[in-house]
Amino acid sequence: MTMSWIKNSPGTGATAARLAKRIEQLSGGKIKIKIYGAGELVSAFEVLDAVGSGTADMGHTASFFWQGKMRASAMFTAVPFGLIPQEHMVWIYHNGGQALWDELYAPFGVKPFLASNTGIGMGGWFRKEIHSLEDLKGLKYRMPGLGGEVFRRLGALTVNIPPPDIATSLHSGVVDAAEWLGPWSDLAMGFYKSTPYYYAPGFHEPNGAAEFLVNRDLWDNLPEDVQNIIEIACLAEHSFALTEIDWANPPALKKLVEEHGVQVRQFPDDVLTAAQQVSEDVLDDLASIDDITARIVASFRQTKNTQIEWSKISRLPFLRARAS
Amino acid sequence: MTMSWIKNSPGTGATAARLAKRIEQLSGGKIKIKIYGAGELVSAFEVLDAVGSGTADMGHTASFFWQGKMRASAMFTAVPFGLIPQEHMVWIYHNGGQALWDELYAPFGVKPFLASNTGIGMGGWFRKEIHSLEDLKGLKYRMPGLGGEVFRRLGALTVNIPPPDIATSLHSGVVDAAEWLGPWSDLAMGFYKSTPYYYAPGFHEPNGAAEFLVNRDLWDNLPEDVQNIIEIACLAEHSFALTEIDWANPPALKKLVEEHGVQVRQFPDDVLTAAQQVSEDVLDDLASIDDITARIVASFRQTKNTQIEWSKISRLPFLRARAS
Repeated sequence: MTMSWIKNSPGTGATAARLAKRIEQLSGGKIKIKIYGAGELVSAFEVLDAVGSGTADMGHTASFFWQGKMRASAMFTAVPFGLIPQEHMVWIYHNGGQALWDELYAPFGVKPFLASNTGIGMGGWFRKEIHSLEDLKGLKYRMPGLGGEVFRRLGALTVNIPPPDIATSLHSGVVDAAEWLGPWSDLAMGFYKSTPYYYAPGFHEPNGAAEFLVNRDLWDNLPEDVQNIIEIACLAEHSFALTEIDWANPPALKKLVEEHGVQVRQFPDDVLTAAQQVSEDVLDDLASIDDITARIVASFRQTKNTQIEWSKISRLPFLRARAS
Repeated sequence: MTMSWIKNSPGTGATAARLAKRIEQLSGGKIKIKIYGAGELVSAFEVLDAVGSGTADMGHTASFFWQGKMRASAMFTAVPFGLIPQEHMVWIYHNGGQALWDELYAPFGVKPFLASNTGIGMGGWFRKEIHSLEDLKGLKYRMPGLGGEVFRRLGALTVNIPPPDIATSLHSGVVDAAEWLGPWSDLAMGFYKSTPYYYAPGFHEPNGAAEFLVNRDLWDNLPEDVQNIIEIACLAEHSFALTEIDWANPPALKKLVEEHGVQVRQFPDDVLTAAQQVSEDVLDDLASIDDITARIVASFRQTKNTQIEWSKISRLPFLRARAS
């Protein structure tokens, strides 16, 4: 198994190792998985090709890295103003998401699984406060994926910088702002050392899915009991990892605020309103690319619309009442 | 495995059967599970005793049925104004909930697992509209568990009626209102035939956990690989079932509204405010019962307080912005 993460890194590296261990244990020792961190077998951004070609049997990575090969892939990680994790599971497990994902990845010779999740992210670290949409104009902002495209359309100069270089870029002023994940991961990255303002909510990444990939030929020839083991191990680890991060985020945020003087801010309403509109435009543009992308956008939107209606009646009024 | 549900009933019966099948498959045929519906081996409310005494090896049920034996048990199903499912997983998997649950159930000779979830419920079916807290006074309302205690303190005459009799009781006017679960399950129960108003949110039941029980002696003597299979199967099935219900609720609600003329209403603010205060009082009273109950309440509240702070920064502002 080759990963896009550093071996044994907290969060991503740990959930991948735990998944491998679950599969090994459930197989009663029939399956042995050797783990390669980013750069050991192939680089972080070559995991899809390595698994597709059989250089590796399996991979642990994130679908938005493959936007250059298939534009819809980012939707299986996160969509700005899209589904939250529980709704993303509705889509993948019950509303046709898995079949579309399989179809999208088939030409690359891999079978994908929803394997981990970093949950609702934060909006990122800013050297200066954002008072209105105007303050985004010309802002040099580290943000990849569909979220980067949304901020670009809002006037920011979005760039993608590899994770190990984000902190240095913020510190030296190469960028004015940067997002990574949430408090637990961001604390470890040390962004608080050069940027005082930490914005929420992470509307660009309301979901943070990681994927487990299996070489398609290998998968098709695995006995049914082993296929079943892999499916159940991914199902179990996804929710275990998602809720581990929810568990770890609040104390990390407390530490950032109380020990490091970080100031938590909410994006102004005009930014949220404009970003939501632009997020729909980005999906509209995706839908015009080709048939499979159009069908993925349509399926995603059908899930989103029905889940939002349900959320407006149940989850949202409950959370609002509980917070008052 | 003996259940508190009717064999093969949609939702509860189906998730229990799926869990049994997952365990059988993962064990490669080493484990065979024979399923008994409510009333076949023992009644719905005798599942705990049956598993504890070894009459059954395993059970599928809900913890709030055992409030008469251990008052804190209801907290492992749902707490009014408490945790939502993703937060409940944080508590059970990562923040000490499982260890306390094990300790609470040990004297009864069973080991519990979080095995399924009906999600955030609806507030119930009402023959008349609720305009203010005043309208709850003297209302005959079918609601068991901690939620029933909350409504009792708000002035309602809460009663517990077995599920098969709820629809008849509503129709004949024996009760003025009744809650069950959410749109998917409630549609099948036919409550819409006699009650036009369907209230939300189900603040009395923001979580709806079902539990899988294993006889404690049996569990302690199971080989590690079988214990591991049971743990992972429960982890996987819990999230699969939870999101199946989220998937099924919106179309069921649409059908209730469009085909059966049901009117969806939100509880008035004064009801929500009073209910939230009373819910805290109910937990305070629980905490004074004995040491284990006090520790469970403290652990639950610590989880709730940290998760609410995090939710206020991330999930709630995101859902609010997305709904606007």
